[in-house]
Amino acid sequence: MKHLLLLLLGTLLSSIAAQSEYALSYEKARQAVLNAEEQLMTGGRISLSSDEAKVDDLFMQYKLGELAQGFRNAEQNAAAMHFFKAKPLIDRSAIFRFLQQMPKGAVLHLHNTASVSSKWVVQNMSYMPGMLRCTNAQGRSRLSFRKAPKEHGCSSQYVLVADERRNSIDPALYDENLERLFNLYTPVPELEYPTITAVWDKFQGMFDTLSEAIYYLPAFRAYHWQLLEELFNDNVMYAELRVGLHELYDASGRTFPKEQSVRELLQLNEKFVRLHPNFLGIKLIYAVWRGADEQKMRQNVAQFKLLQNMFPNFVVGFDLVGQEDKGKPLYEQISVLKELPPNTRLFLHAGETNWYSASTDINLLDALLLNATRIGHGFALVKHPILMNAVKTRQIAVELNPISNQVLHLVWDMRNHPGAQYMALDIPVVICNDDPGFWNAKGLSYDFYYAIMSLAPNNAGIRVLKSLAYNSLRYSALTEAEKQKAYALLEYSWGRFIDKVLQGKVF
Amino acid sequence: MKHLLLLLLGTLLSSIAAQSEYALSYEKARQAVLNAEEQLMTGGRISLSSDEAKVDDLFMQYKLGELAQGFRNAEQNAAAMHFFKAKPLIDRSAIFRFLQQMPKGAVLHLHNTASVSSKWVVQNMSYMPGMLRCTNAQGRSRLSFRKAPKEHGCSSQYVLVADERRNSIDPALYDENLERLFNLYTPVPELEYPTITAVWDKFQGMFDTLSEAIYYLPAFRAYHWQLLEELFNDNVMYAELRVGLHELYDASGRTFPKEQSVRELLQLNEKFVRLHPNFLGIKLIYAVWRGADEQKMRQNVAQFKLLQNMFPNFVVGFDLVGQEDKGKPLYEQISVLKELPPNTRLFLHAGETNWYSASTDINLLDALLLNATRIGHGFALVKHPILMNAVKTRQIAVELNPISNQVLHLVWDMRNHPGAQYMALDIPVVICNDDPGFWNAKGLSYDFYYAIMSLAPNNAGIRVLKSLAYNSLRYSALTEAEKQKAYALLEYSWGRFIDKVLQGKVF
Ligand SMILES: [Zn+2]
Ligand SMILES: [Zn+2]
Repeated sequence: MKHLLLLLLGTLLSSIAAQSEYALSYEKARQAVLNAEEQLMTGGRISLSSDEAKVDDLFMQYKLGELAQGFRNAEQNAAAMHFFKAKPLIDRSAIFRFLQQMPKGAVLHLHNTASVSSKWVVQNMSYMPGMLRCTNAQGRSRLSFRKAPKEHGCSSQYVLVADERRNSIDPALYDENLERLFNLYTPVPELEYPTITAVWDKFQGMFDTLSEAIYYLPAFRAYHWQLLEELFNDNVMYAELRVGLHELYDASGRTFPKEQSVRELLQLNEKFVRLHPNFLGIKLIYAVWRGADEQKMRQNVAQFKLLQNMFPNFVVGFDLVGQEDKGKPLYEQISVLKELPPNTRLFLHAGETNWYSASTDINLLDALLLNATRIGHGFALVKHPILMNAVKTRQIAVELNPISNQVLHLVWDMRNHPGAQYMALDIPVVICNDDPGFWNAKGLSYDFYYAIMSLAPNNAGIRVLKSLAYNSLRYSALTEAEKQKAYALLEYSWGRFIDKVLQGKVF
Repeated sequence: MKHLLLLLLGTLLSSIAAQSEYALSYEKARQAVLNAEEQLMTGGRISLSSDEAKVDDLFMQYKLGELAQGFRNAEQNAAAMHFFKAKPLIDRSAIFRFLQQMPKGAVLHLHNTASVSSKWVVQNMSYMPGMLRCTNAQGRSRLSFRKAPKEHGCSSQYVLVADERRNSIDPALYDENLERLFNLYTPVPELEYPTITAVWDKFQGMFDTLSEAIYYLPAFRAYHWQLLEELFNDNVMYAELRVGLHELYDASGRTFPKEQSVRELLQLNEKFVRLHPNFLGIKLIYAVWRGADEQKMRQNVAQFKLLQNMFPNFVVGFDLVGQEDKGKPLYEQISVLKELPPNTRLFLHAGETNWYSASTDINLLDALLLNATRIGHGFALVKHPILMNAVKTRQIAVELNPISNQVLHLVWDMRNHPGAQYMALDIPVVICNDDPGFWNAKGLSYDFYYAIMSLAPNNAGIRVLKSLAYNSLRYSALTEAEKQKAYALLEYSWGRFIDKVLQGKVF
């Protein structure tokens, strides 16, 4: 209600100002509205310590400097540019370096098999002995460490990647081309992906290309260890991973059921946390294909129950994934979803679309009626004021994935991302990265760059950033006790970071 | 307050639905929210006659058919495409033909010297005897019917367009190239205009290229007559033109003061209305360059006072124009603006920007504090919830210019245009066309196409269209008596149009 009052107050102020010059001067009314806007937004009511205020001043100098440069020269305006074009600029940005070192809390929307930087996959995983490649009927490569031509849909023989590389004219070039199989990067995205269909087809295909290789046990361990490394190195302290889960296999031909992949992740996680006491680890959200038929969906539900029984504090929720525009709407899955245990937390992709009042964006309504704990993307929520209000009132966090939405063709100039409005209204949002490995990103800082430079207003500083970091814990699936520990840890790292900035070690 | 209640109602419904299955079934809650959204939006509370309902059914069949085609094939999805690419699809669309024949009411945001289709300018104005061309230092052509090398900044000799054409290898090709001087069309806008600066530079240059030619008295008359024809033929019945006003000149070398150009427009208007009793005519909004210094601005204010005294019911308001990102913010012009007569109606361009909390979008706040009658564009309003609420409460119409915003680089996929949200919230909007002659459009129907196909939800039909047509009269500067006449005329033409559709003469 507080915000509603602020809204009404704003109206009052501006209308008084317009109608009379007696009660309030123009200047006062103007300032009152500007202040009300600042207070209404995400982080607007956080008060900063004097050290934090100093850091904020410094941060704002750099931020306004970079924005001013972009204002003068549109070709240097990373905040308005497609990530593929902006990345070299971002990599040189002082704000970006600040964000990399800043404790960002948790990432709550991240698909495991698209999470690790493609460079690492090429330089490490593809050098593991035994990686094979075949080509399917659509000309798409399938990578794996075992032969299963039917499942892989091979229309070519399998070749060893090591052989191909050795026999190629230029192994470095071979690796570059290999990387393109699971990285959407192109210098001219507007030409290479003229439509949403073009980019989604390639994007979905990349999961097919890579997933089977990841579920090779040695690769699985190395890949997920690297996933944790990349998060940790980017100053992320906790993650909730969307996982599809396949059976694992090893070099001897043995296969292991899905539960085993969860057990592996649990063990990797425990080991990683032991070695990195400032990292709180990961939890899993079981994510199944939204296009599945009823029978398959019942199996998924059964599998989820099994996993949740086995790993009650590790497998913490359920989701449906895949292009919403193409898949079944939630509304068609309701009867199956109702078979989930009543305490199941739903973290539902919904409204990842530009359609308005199509089955896709109405997924938002069903997600709310299904009592979702968080909404994945919620890009279209902005067109549904009633649902937007419900999300705010019920404190359902929206998992924003700025770069994902840009690369996957929902928005071009990131300053039009609806996240700007969610922040303006203090709708709970968390900044996430979705599939960073598939679009030349790494960690969470690139998405934070857009969040503070493009989505947030020009004058927004570290209040917003701090608020986003804390949001990521508040809206996580951590238990209450874990949350307390997480807050304490974030407070500690935040303090250390502030000191570091004041010591001149960041800028 | 009614809408606020609806908002709260929505929250209530969805939260009841989520928390209990007793009070309301899932299905009922779902339908209640969908209904509330429909009722909340623009046109949501209009009731249709049984004839109108039949037309609505028909309209929805075609609309959903075209959207379904776009859903299946993104390359045919005009609603999501840049106008330059979509135009051939739109020209073939049944919905577009419907919109062309539909009475659309008024157009309230239109700049006179960029209003007429470029084809007409080439085929008619450029064939008038005596048109000259010179090239300035930036390589930009200047067209006119008199020599004034200094004012035109010519760095070349003047040549007669007729001579150039006659001596060219291919006169048709010459005309094509001539048209490009004042038409931004290109098949690849994403390549030709990579930044907002690139397209605005060319756009502003086009005013320089053409304006002087238009102020040649015979051209002035022909051009503005054609302007009225194009509006009338597109079933627009009234317009409020933003005019810059220069001195007129004739072939004998005589010049006439600005007042004379107003008088000419008044006479043309009276004659046109006499010949077209179903057309209500035009009024003028005096629009001056926002970058002007204080002295120049005082002259502008004095000129406006003079014009308003001479033509009190014809020159009806004041505006500042030119790229907001580059020009002075309103805040710096306040002291001069306060010298306008207290009853001056302000129709202010504001928030035509993707910047957030920059001087540009804060123009919105100043426009409200200055008690603007309408807001031109208001693209950035969506990021300012307090101002958005004020606009709604105070019933300040937002003049939406969808194609303009797309061509001038604010938005790519029109479904992201903030107008969608203004309509969802029933913020008063009017659909306008800004500068149709400069981007290969003609009349208002192309902008209406995007309004109903991209901005409005999929399920929105003629309720929205009717509401938009009536809005354009309600928020006009017509006097109360004129409005009554206008409403009656719209009601009459609307009824005739409905009959025509039912007689199978439209689809
Ligand atoms: Zn996702
Ligand atoms: Zn304009």
